[in-house]
Amino acid sequence: MARLRNIPRVALTLLAVVAAIVVVASCSDGQKKAGVGASADLKALMLARGLTEADVTAALKTFTPTGKKDEFYLFASGGHGGNMIVIGVPSMRILKYIGVFTPEPWQGYGYDQETRDILEAGSPPGNMLTWGDMHHPAFSETNADYDGQFIFANDKANARLAVIDLRDFATKQIVQSGLIMNDHGGTFVTPNTEYVIETAQMAAPLGGGYAPLSEYNDKYRGAQIYWKFDRAKGRIIKEQSWAIELPPYMQDLADAGKGASDGWAFCNSVNTERAVGDLQGGKPPLESGASQNDMDFLHVINWRKAEAVAAAGKTKTIAGMRVITLETAIAEGLLAFIPEPKSPHGVDIAPNGTDIVVSGKLDTHATVYDFNKIMALMEAKTYEGVDAYGVPILPFRDTIRGQVEIGLGPLHTQFDDKGFCYTSIFLESKVAKWSLADLTLIDKASVHYNIGHLSAAEGDALHPKGRYLIAMNKWAIDRFNGVGPLLPQNFQLIDISGDKMEVIYDMPLPLGEPHYAQMISADKIKTIDMYSPVGTNPVTMSPDPHATVTEEDVRIERKSDGVHVYMTLVRSHLNPDIIEVKKGDRVHIHATSLEQALDATHGFCIDMYNVNLSIEPGKVCNVSFTADRAGVFPYYCTEFCSALHLEMAGYLLVKPN
Amino acid sequence: MARLRNIPRVALTLLAVVAAIVVVASCSDGQKKAGVGASADLKALMLARGLTEADVTAALKTFTPTGKKDEFYLFASGGHGGNMIVIGVPSMRILKYIGVFTPEPWQGYGYDQETRDILEAGSPPGNMLTWGDMHHPAFSETNADYDGQFIFANDKANARLAVIDLRDFATKQIVQSGLIMNDHGGTFVTPNTEYVIETAQMAAPLGGGYAPLSEYNDKYRGAQIYWKFDRAKGRIIKEQSWAIELPPYMQDLADAGKGASDGWAFCNSVNTERAVGDLQGGKPPLESGASQNDMDFLHVINWRKAEAVAAAGKTKTIAGMRVITLETAIAEGLLAFIPEPKSPHGVDIAPNGTDIVVSGKLDTHATVYDFNKIMALMEAKTYEGVDAYGVPILPFRDTIRGQVEIGLGPLHTQFDDKGFCYTSIFLESKVAKWSLADLTLIDKASVHYNIGHLSAAEGDALHPKGRYLIAMNKWAIDRFNGVGPLLPQNFQLIDISGDKMEVIYDMPLPLGEPHYAQMISADKIKTIDMYSPVGTNPVTMSPDPHATVTEEDVRIERKSDGVHVYMTLVRSHLNPDIIEVKKGDRVHIHATSLEQALDATHGFCIDMYNVNLSIEPGKVCNVSFTADRAGVFPYYCTEFCSALHLEMAGYLLVKPN
Repeated sequence: MARLRNIPRVALTLLAVVAAIVVVASCSDGQKKAGVGASADLKALMLARGLTEADVTAALKTFTPTGKKDEFYLFASGGHGGNMIVIGVPSMRILKYIGVFTPEPWQGYGYDQETRDILEAGSPPGNMLTWGDMHHPAFSETNADYDGQFIFANDKANARLAVIDLRDFATKQIVQSGLIMNDHGGTFVTPNTEYVIETAQMAAPLGGGYAPLSEYNDKYRGAQIYWKFDRAKGRIIKEQSWAIELPPYMQDLADAGKGASDGWAFCNSVNTERAVGDLQGGKPPLESGASQNDMDFLHVINWRKAEAVAAAGKTKTIAGMRVITLETAIAEGLLAFIPEPKSPHGVDIAPNGTDIVVSGKLDTHATVYDFNKIMALMEAKTYEGVDAYGVPILPFRDTIRGQVEIGLGPLHTQFDDKGFCYTSIFLESKVAKWSLADLTLIDKASVHYNIGHLSAAEGDALHPKGRYLIAMNKWAIDRFNGVGPLLPQNFQLIDISGDKMEVIYDMPLPLGEPHYAQMISADKIKTIDMYSPVGTNPVTMSPDPHATVTEEDVRIERKSDGVHVYMTLVRSHLNPDIIEVKKGDRVHIHATSLEQALDATHGFCIDMYNVNLSIEPGKVCNVSFTADRAGVFPYYCTEFCSALHLEMAGYLLVKPN
Repeated sequence: MARLRNIPRVALTLLAVVAAIVVVASCSDGQKKAGVGASADLKALMLARGLTEADVTAALKTFTPTGKKDEFYLFASGGHGGNMIVIGVPSMRILKYIGVFTPEPWQGYGYDQETRDILEAGSPPGNMLTWGDMHHPAFSETNADYDGQFIFANDKANARLAVIDLRDFATKQIVQSGLIMNDHGGTFVTPNTEYVIETAQMAAPLGGGYAPLSEYNDKYRGAQIYWKFDRAKGRIIKEQSWAIELPPYMQDLADAGKGASDGWAFCNSVNTERAVGDLQGGKPPLESGASQNDMDFLHVINWRKAEAVAAAGKTKTIAGMRVITLETAIAEGLLAFIPEPKSPHGVDIAPNGTDIVVSGKLDTHATVYDFNKIMALMEAKTYEGVDAYGVPILPFRDTIRGQVEIGLGPLHTQFDDKGFCYTSIFLESKVAKWSLADLTLIDKASVHYNIGHLSAAEGDALHPKGRYLIAMNKWAIDRFNGVGPLLPQNFQLIDISGDKMEVIYDMPLPLGEPHYAQMISADKIKTIDMYSPVGTNPVTMSPDPHATVTEEDVRIERKSDGVHVYMTLVRSHLNPDIIEVKKGDRVHIHATSLEQALDATHGFCIDMYNVNLSIEPGKVCNVSFTADRAGVFPYYCTEFCSALHLEMAGYLLVKPN
């Protein structure tokens, strides 16, 4: 390629050097702060801004000065926004939206070939899905504690599951089973991330067939899928995954046992009535039909034994997935039911591994099941009967350690490091703090409003951290400045380090409808600063075959499959800066960032051709398009990457035929 | 339709009543706060969290307790995220991302037919664009002050312009001229929002034709478009819009005059060298070729006279747009140039209407031009020559009131209410405060890092508000917890109410690459809480012809164009809850929310069919799809709208043929 000759570069080089010096100098001298004469000034400030003493305390507990870091990361699902939301705690600043099920152009996610392939592989054949309904994130775990390597999340709407690598905060894989149509109960990991658990909510014929609703009881089924995770590869391996067929109830949230209960999984259900609505046929709505029974069924599943049953080939293959049929599950003793009160929603295994906390959303209690009692009853085969499908039912009263009355509409429970439980109370808009040892209510805090899930620091792991709790309030109503009819949700940060809970921050959610979140100690997250060496493919994390690692290698080659452009980006030029093709040519851009400075990200777009890439330092992006319109189309770096960023541009010329 | 009979509704009704009471009670009693014993506790807290006294002051200046509102809204462009970001000031909490150029599923933006039509109308025919590069938002103005009714923004990558209605914070229109290929200089409004100004950056043959780069000087052109805005309709009217042809320089940012300079527009340019790069041909890169001249040209445009010239029919129609040719513009005296130093970037008209501040990004000065001097010279036709296209050039020294040395790499200037100017200094990572009257430097504040634009409260309007300034820093480097190679930007809030500027908050930008932002007093924004009456189409803001305003009207009708489903949503059921169609049917969903309670938003999705809607109270959404796969597909409300939200679901049954 042409060397950069004939160029009066002195001015440019000087500028680059000055810029580098200035940035380093600014980094090291930090922010100068004006000394403030304390009390009198602060009182005046409090008065001027209407702050109470409690507000001042809350401000000082959350304010994080320039350059200081947050103690925890909160990873929240984005609901039908289809993305994941990363928040710093206690500052409650959003650090990043990660594109997962929905294309997102700032990251180039779903715009370059690599990430488009991820979305396509995670869609039904020939039916590219462009959004998802992300519900429950789950960190990878080692010995039942978060290890900070990966985070998983499900798409309820399309029964999918995503793998996000926490080295670069990027989605690496999306899988869909084809077995189930919809999942609410996912994702949950087993204590060493052997499996990622996904459970169907709305029953349907397994594998996607048609059957009329009149055959619901016979032809519709639920299922719980155990997706095998290969930690070294950082990928789910579909061929090594398997599922258990379940009755056509609405299986709800699940949790994997830990400690004593390792090897077991627990899953709620509602609609054991098997109602299907039909308002136009004069039937009750599903909300009513599914709320008739006083008790639904907690599903108790021996996944470690099931794994052996699957390995032994006692499965039926449906949609390419090995399925342990309900008949086999019952015959092998993999599945038992326990009644659970009043439309249960959350099932959460306590850090002790033996207490299983279930809350019914039409109940006023948290119910604590005892894993040891369950095991004893199962070993003795002390059942009170079977359900319509032959699944044995354990006697409710003999499985529980007790119940604690906490409020109207309890949903989900998290744990701290001192033996306390925190349960969200939807109908009261409160959080209840209660003692797991004593089953006594300790404190209640009002939240604003309609809390769904809640998330304590590592609050569902073997060793919770305490300190902070997030109330994930579904409605904000009057909390924030108006933004039209579609309101943000309100995450409230609660200080749980003292005896009484204190709400210390209100945070609007500007995009997405989070359902659940997990909070991890910041020191467990080890990110990379750039892709190294130059020419790394971000999906494979290895050298890309199309990388162009020096400007000398820049070239445009016409091949049988079209025009290949081997491009580099470095401040402040794109090379080549002119691309000439003929109308109808297939064009393949292979763009490599030669930068290896932290934060020196470039973008690349071609006007009118819907081409848009984000090319972080060292990264390679590939994209192909057909030059189907003649004309002159500017291209440029979309990042304000340098003083001369506006000049980091070029022309695509498409000659008419 | 079927009445809701045979239903044991007592429990459900009771729940609804209790929920309503609880929410109201929580609203009125506010948050209980534990009294804190001030000083000793605060000192301990400062010590524990490493806070200085300046940090405490900053915390108290920004912390906004639960239920208290922000004083200002900041509307920031999302760069190649393609959305707009709404931020509360001084809390710096993000209140909303508004989908504009990029589909966004949480809002259903680009997923229902109405908003898909907006995106399609804003794309070249047959070439649906799925992202944009949003650069410069501009509020609608009345008498040169923001009026809070609309905000506009451009898509640099595809030369488009969007209209966002601030009643519901929703995009209502996207327009593309077909005349230019790329715009950096947009959007800017005239003082009564008669026009929204968009200016090409990268020159190309006007109207989209092909010409080789060897014919750049003759065939490539810039243009400035004056899009006519109809405030009553809330729409841009393309037929009443017009443009002025400009030489093939890179026209950069613009600003409309106000006060004395009302009726005039001012636009920077770079690359008066007309360099086009060509590295592979051995030429200098554009960054160098475009930086050879010491002076480029400030464009001075008499838009009010140009409007009359266009109205008189002295235009040439290109791509359906009336264009005043360069020849006519010169002949009619609509356009003059003034030299401006060293790659100018920002041009900003001071509140006095006569001072025009220009900064050169390779300069160390801000240059203040005097509108009165310019007018006197133009009236006297005192030119120092013409450019290569015959445009008269005014003598630089005679047009300026003075220059002030402020630092290396000044970019953009904002104004406060006390006569001070604030200029971003990119290469030094600083903000300079200087006196407009005296042209003296007052103060400089370090920011972190690489500031691009900056935004003061109503800081480019006739009456700036002072108080707050946002430094829009392009790089964050070490400011926040790691999130992988793609870092957030850093908005730093600066208190400008005192003599010295104080940086009081660091805010990461989690999605998007903001370029410019405007800050408006919160009391100017008057949002609607819901769509009223029930059955309102959010794009037309009038009753939708397909609205279903009571459950009695729910129905499924087979028509010649497919199956029409007239659906209602109200807590907690979808009606109908069963839809049966045949494979291959075209299905049209017309979904109406019967809710009229603030924040009672429902969603609607159909599994595997990529159907996803956000249906705020009273809103109607329409969506069509072809049922091309047989099977059983659950649908449900994607919002956690009530305790029984999981049961707000139904089935689409697609019978095989």
